[in-house]
Amino acid sequence: MQLTRAADYAVRVMIHMAGLPPGTRASRSELAEAVECPEQFLSKVLQGLTRGGLVASHRGNTGGFELPGEHRAATLLEVVEAIEGHIRLNVCLISEHSCTRQAWCPAHDVWAEAQASLVAVLQKANISELAERAAARKAAGPVNQTVWN
Amino acid sequence: MQLTRAADYAVRVMIHMAGLPPGTRASRSELAEAVECPEQFLSKVLQGLTRGGLVASHRGNTGGFELPGEHRAATLLEVVEAIEGHIRLNVCLISEHSCTRQAWCPAHDVWAEAQASLVAVLQKANISELAERAAARKAAGPVNQTVWN
Repeated sequence: MQLTRAADYAVRVMIHMAGLPPGTRASRSELAEAVECPEQFLSKVLQGLTRGGLVASHRGNTGGFELPGEHRAATLLEVVEAIEGHIRLNVCLISEHSCTRQAWCPAHDVWAEAQASLVAVLQKANISELAERAAARKAAGPVNQTVWN
Repeated sequence: MQLTRAADYAVRVMIHMAGLPPGTRASRSELAEAVECPEQFLSKVLQGLTRGGLVASHRGNTGGFELPGEHRAATLLEVVEAIEGHIRLNVCLISEHSCTRQAWCPAHDVWAEAQASLVAVLQKANISELAERAAARKAAGPVNQTVWN
């Protein structure tokens, strides 16, 4: 029950792009360096984000990847689901899935509640706010930086 | 980001055992039938639960698997973690993991919050209560059974 590496990098790259001036087109290699991801791997992540409509890919000399204005406020849930598909904490939460225990299984209710609480947290986090928070922390410098426990 | 099949079966088998009279020893084949799991696969699940100390395994003619009294109130979190290890929604939440982005990464806070909310739901669900709920629903019969959406 862990986020895929691809989804983690997708979130990193979206936050990075939301911190760039609107209209910026960044190359794959610039993005790979910024998010500390092997370029080949990031290529697949960017494909997923492009296919999911969150990122625009432009070809040619002035090409590159761009975060369209309307997706600067994408939620973390949208980014994760663009890569991993709908979050379904257990197979019994997939609507097409039929389970013979459906009528009485009490664990189903718990999986559903756990999923809902997870989704709610990812849904209220938005990429541009996270980009602002990252910029503020970087500007504050090492003295005031958060220390994780 | 999905529960493993092994953890799902572990929860099923724990709920089933919590619904048996205290001291009952159930064979692997009885349990496999009750939780609708291939016997070979359940064998590994039972090994995990035994190793995790949640289930006692007795050998010999009167042998079988038993849920000791003190584990009838195990939480869903304990059962899942006995099989999958500690829930860590992202690698940056593993305490030994060091990340160069640690000082400023705003996504870390969101992963930590999402994990905490998921863990809280699994921690408040307890196996014996779920077993009681299952028994009540089965007793109520198909007319009053829950229909999932």
